[in-house]
Amino acid sequence: MTLKIALLGFGTVASGVPIILEQNSEKISQLVQKPITISKILVRDASEKKRLKEQGYDYHFVTDIDEILSDDDISVVVELMGRIEPAKTFITKALESKKHVVSANKDLIALHGKELLDVARQNNVSFYYEAAVAGGIPILRTLATSLVADKITKLLGVLNGTSNFMLTKMVEEGWTYDKALQTAQELGYAESDPTNDVEGIDAAYKLVILSQFAFGMTIDYKDVTHQGITTITPEDVNFAQNHGYVIKLVGSIEETKSGLAVEVSPSLLPEKHPLARVNDVMNAVYLNSIGIGESMYYGPGAGQKPTATSVVADLMTLSNEVASNDQAKLFNNFNRPSKIADLEDNQSAYYFSIALSNGSKAELTEFLKNEGITPKAFVLEKSSSGKNLAMIKTNVITKNQLEQIEQKLQTSTAFQLRNAFRIIGD
Amino acid sequence: MTLKIALLGFGTVASGVPIILEQNSEKISQLVQKPITISKILVRDASEKKRLKEQGYDYHFVTDIDEILSDDDISVVVELMGRIEPAKTFITKALESKKHVVSANKDLIALHGKELLDVARQNNVSFYYEAAVAGGIPILRTLATSLVADKITKLLGVLNGTSNFMLTKMVEEGWTYDKALQTAQELGYAESDPTNDVEGIDAAYKLVILSQFAFGMTIDYKDVTHQGITTITPEDVNFAQNHGYVIKLVGSIEETKSGLAVEVSPSLLPEKHPLARVNDVMNAVYLNSIGIGESMYYGPGAGQKPTATSVVADLMTLSNEVASNDQAKLFNNFNRPSKIADLEDNQSAYYFSIALSNGSKAELTEFLKNEGITPKAFVLEKSSSGKNLAMIKTNVITKNQLEQIEQKLQTSTAFQLRNAFRIIGD
Repeated sequence: MTLKIALLGFGTVASGVPIILEQNSEKISQLVQKPITISKILVRDASEKKRLKEQGYDYHFVTDIDEILSDDDISVVVELMGRIEPAKTFITKALESKKHVVSANKDLIALHGKELLDVARQNNVSFYYEAAVAGGIPILRTLATSLVADKITKLLGVLNGTSNFMLTKMVEEGWTYDKALQTAQELGYAESDPTNDVEGIDAAYKLVILSQFAFGMTIDYKDVTHQGITTITPEDVNFAQNHGYVIKLVGSIEETKSGLAVEVSPSLLPEKHPLARVNDVMNAVYLNSIGIGESMYYGPGAGQKPTATSVVADLMTLSNEVASNDQAKLFNNFNRPSKIADLEDNQSAYYFSIALSNGSKAELTEFLKNEGITPKAFVLEKSSSGKNLAMIKTNVITKNQLEQIEQKLQTSTAFQLRNAFRIIGD
Repeated sequence: MTLKIALLGFGTVASGVPIILEQNSEKISQLVQKPITISKILVRDASEKKRLKEQGYDYHFVTDIDEILSDDDISVVVELMGRIEPAKTFITKALESKKHVVSANKDLIALHGKELLDVARQNNVSFYYEAAVAGGIPILRTLATSLVADKITKLLGVLNGTSNFMLTKMVEEGWTYDKALQTAQELGYAESDPTNDVEGIDAAYKLVILSQFAFGMTIDYKDVTHQGITTITPEDVNFAQNHGYVIKLVGSIEETKSGLAVEVSPSLLPEKHPLARVNDVMNAVYLNSIGIGESMYYGPGAGQKPTATSVVADLMTLSNEVASNDQAKLFNNFNRPSKIADLEDNQSAYYFSIALSNGSKAELTEFLKNEGITPKAFVLEKSSSGKNLAMIKTNVITKNQLEQIEQKLQTSTAFQLRNAFRIIGD
C-alpha cells in the first residue's frame, strides 16, 4: 500500500517534491511505512498541462480540483499554489473531504491559519506546513517537538532572504539601497514589485506563525508592527559599524508582562551576536529560553530544494501516522490566550538619525532630554546632501516615549527624524 | 493517571529535571497527556540520602536499584549517573523490566548503544537520549524527524565546550594553551584531568552517536581518529588569522564513495564559515545536505538546565506515546551497513608547521614536492624558541599522502612536523 498524494500547483517548489523523493529515495523508502506516490497534479488549464507534458513530465495532470477531492485513494493534498484564493477554498474542501493537507503557503496560514486548523480538527485530519516559515530551517517542528520542554522568552529572526541579501551588500560592500535592489532583482531574489520583502511584510507573516509555535499565541497579522529597509542610508550603516553593530532586518517576538511585543524592523545587532553573521540569502531564528538559554537555527529561507525537503518531511510524518492508524495530530498543541504587549512594556534602546534643518545641536540635546533621552553616543556630521545629521544611540525607552518623539518631530521645523532603529542586546 | 519516573543519580543534571518541570509547568502540563511525577530517586548510599534530605530535597530516595525495577508503577527510568558501570547494568535491567529509558550518558551510548538499543527493541520499550549529544542543541530528534527527508553528506561540529572556550581565548586574547587550561579549570569548565575534553575524546563519542542519526551508520569509537588541542601554539593561531582562518576543534563526518571519514581534529575554518563564530562554551552542528544545502544548529553543549531540558523533552515525548498506547518507537530508524572511508578517499588541504632543524627551505620545498605538495602559502619565521619554523598551506592531499609524510618526517633529522591541521572549505 502506498500513500497517494495530490499536488496543487506545479511551480518551482512543487516540481522540487519529486526531485527530493527521487534523489533521496534510498533513505526515504527505509523511513516511511507507506511509500509516497504522486497520484494527480492540479494545474491551471489545458495549456499548462500541454506545456508540462511537452517538457517531459509524465504525471496525471488535472485541471479540475474535484477530480482530486472525489478520489478516495488520495489521502494527502499538498497545496503549493501560493496566494490566498483559490488555495484557501481548495484546502478547506480537501480537509472537509477528510484528506490531510500539507502546505507551504505562508501568507495564507498567517492570515487564515486559525480557521483552517479548525476545519482540520473538525474533520480529524492533519494540516502540516513546515515549509511555510523559513523554507529550509525546520523550525516549526523543532519548536513543537524538541523544544516542547522549554519556555521561549524571546525570538529574534532574520526571516527574509531578499532583504538580507540587500543589507549584506549595503553593509559589506557599501552599496546603496537602490543598487542592492537592482542586483537582487537581476539575480532573481527580488520580484519586480519587491514590497513584501523590503517592507518587512513577508517577515511579519512568518512571525504570526512563529508566535503560535514558540509562544502558543495566535496573534493577528495587524498586531505585527513592520518597518522596512528602504530608508537605510550609508550613513546609518557607517554609524552602526563604527559603534560595533551590524544592521539587519530583524523580526522579533518578546514576551513582556502584559503580552507579546511583535515587530519587524531594521535593527542594530552587536557584531558578536550570532544573528549578526547571518548573511546573503540565509535565514536564522535565534531563541532565548529559560531552559536552553540561547540557541540558533540557521539555513536557507527559500529555494526549490530546501522548501521541497520540508514538504517531504511533512509527507513522511503523515505516511507514518497514517500507516500506524494514529489519530490525526495537531502540528502544534501549545495554546494560550493571545495578548499583545502594552506600549509601556515594549522597551528598547534606539538609534536615531535626525536631520537638523533649523535647529542647533544644543536645541536637539535639550529636546531629547525633555523626552527622557540621554544619548549614549552622539555623532554630528554633514550628510551627502549637505545637511547636518545627528546620529544618536539612546538609552532604553518605551514605545510610548518613541511614539511621542516621532509625533513631535513630525511637526517640527527644526528637526526631522530620518530613521529610528532598535538596538538589540544593549 | 500520571507518568511515574525514577531518576538514577541526583547530580547536577538530575537535580535540574525537577527545576525544569517546575519552572515550565504551565506549558508542560498543557502538552503532556500524562503529568510527569518523580516517584523514586536512586542515590549512592545512606549518607548521600541523608545529605540530600538535609538540603531540603523531599523525594523518595532509594539506594537499591531493585526498589525501582520491581516497582510496576514506574514506567520510565532516567539514567543520569554517568560512566559505564553500573549505569550499563541498570539500564539493561530497566529495559528488561519493560521500562522505557531516558539517558544523557554519552560515553555509554557511544560505546554500548547498539547493544542497549537491541535490548530495548527486544523488550518493546523506548530508549531516548537527546541530552547525550550537545546537551542544549536538539540535534538528534531534529535529525530523526525534521531532517528525515534530507540526505546529509557532511557534518561538521564544534562539539566540546571546554576546548572551544580554551581555543576562543587562545585566538581572541592570544593566550597560551597552558593559561587557557588553567582558566578553564578555575571556572569549572575543565576537570582536573582534562584529557577527554582537550584530546577530542568527548567529541569523538558524540560523532559516534551523530553518525547513527545523520548517516544511519553505527560506527565503532575506535574508527574515529582524534587529535587534541594540546599542541596548538600562538604561531599556529597567528598563521591561521593572517590567512583568513580561525582554528577550532572540529568533529567531522563526511560520506565518501567508500564510506564515512570520521575524525576530530584542530581545523582551520574560513573566517566566514558559520562555525568560525561559535565561541566560548557554545557548541554547533553544521550540515551539508542534498536538500536543504547548508544548515546549522547552535546552542550550549552542556550545563544543568540545557541538559535537563533535553531530558524533559524526551520524557514528554514518552508521556504522550505511553498515553496514546503507541508502540515503542526507535529514537532513530535510519540504518545502513557501516563503512569507513578508505584513506585514499579521505581528502583535505592541510596546514603544516615544520621545524627546520638542519634542513634548508629549499630542501624542505624539494621534500614536499616529492610528496605531491605544492604550497599555497609558505611562511618562514623564527619561533619563540629560536628555531626556524616553516608554516605551510598545502593543496588537497589524501590521508595516505599525509601518513606517508608524517612517517618520513618522524625519522628525519632535518625537519620535524610540529602540527598538521586540516583546512576546511578550501
